[in-house]
Amino acid sequence: MEDSWLKRKKAFVGRLEREIAVGRVDRDIIPLLRAINSLNEYYTTSSCSGRIQVVASELPGEKGLMKTLAKWHEPVEVVVVEGVIRESAEPNLWFSVQPPILHIMCRSLEAAFKMLYVARGSGFKRAGIQGGKKDRYPVEIIGTERIEVPLRLHEVDIVPIERLPLLVEAANRLLLRSKERLQRLLLSVKEMEK
Amino acid sequence: MEDSWLKRKKAFVGRLEREIAVGRVDRDIIPLLRAINSLNEYYTTSSCSGRIQVVASELPGEKGLMKTLAKWHEPVEVVVVEGVIRESAEPNLWFSVQPPILHIMCRSLEAAFKMLYVARGSGFKRAGIQGGKKDRYPVEIIGTERIEVPLRLHEVDIVPIERLPLLVEAANRLLLRSKERLQRLLLSVKEMEK
Repeated sequence: MEDSWLKRKKAFVGRLEREIAVGRVDRDIIPLLRAINSLNEYYTTSSCSGRIQVVASELPGEKGLMKTLAKWHEPVEVVVVEGVIRESAEPNLWFSVQPPILHIMCRSLEAAFKMLYVARGSGFKRAGIQGGKKDRYPVEIIGTERIEVPLRLHEVDIVPIERLPLLVEAANRLLLRSKERLQRLLLSVKEMEK
Repeated sequence: MEDSWLKRKKAFVGRLEREIAVGRVDRDIIPLLRAINSLNEYYTTSSCSGRIQVVASELPGEKGLMKTLAKWHEPVEVVVVEGVIRESAEPNLWFSVQPPILHIMCRSLEAAFKMLYVARGSGFKRAGIQGGKKDRYPVEIIGTERIEVPLRLHEVDIVPIERLPLLVEAANRLLLRSKERLQRLLLSVKEMEK
């Protein structure tokens, strides 16, 4: 049993390190992922450090139907967002801030509860155990900071271009707030090692 | 042990029924709450069937700092939302659709896992066990349908009033989609009784 756990962990950590090597992982979440993976009872399976995006879909959250036109894991400049909007002929456009999300596999129920308490203590109230087999308890940790704004619906602009600066400023502030919470989680995870 | 579980369950169910009696519970979630409470291993501790709201705050999700100006658990008319906006002198206004949320206390870990699978099967992917003591495993089930739009930032209108009809239409559609998912969950919970 110990072997199969370690084998799976090595496969996930190996894949993560290869993705880091080719620049496919948001830089600001790498220290947190590595800190979690350095603990015996945990490994990370997927993550996003939070992002701003422009998506084409009729309503938000239409998995499979929506098309991501652009995404940024750091604050974005107004002109860049404006460019994406002007270049798109899509009839429906949504601009959003998506919170950080983290999936962690835990080796025992006790380890999973421990991770929940650490996440909650760092301000991530949306944290839960999502299932369980003998040595696999997946925990999901997700931020609550969200913006979800229709920029265009049925080919009609909902937010005029001249209002974009205020919207993007709010989005950038909210994104940075999310990232600060990730830093707090990193500090708490580092405490777990002791 | 059985006694203390039943005692707590009775207290929660009693409070719920009193709140239903005075009209404080959204009507469309009552059958689901009652179906869950009819099962031996579960009781509900809090819930919201999903809502549309207008809130005064600088950024969304500012607990403690935000002020709810209006909320509706059913589709809302444009003129009503417009009235709330026009009457408010707040410098920052957000319009949002909040998804359904449900907190269920489960008597055992097995019961909690069972509820997770039922929730997931009904389309609620955000479901998790949030903690655990010997006979108390709280499960949170939450929808993913959200809209979070700044109507006004720093006293500047972000969405012009003439665009409100398209925004409210999208919000109403998203809210109804959430409620449909609750109906699916109700059917699945009723299956659990058998």
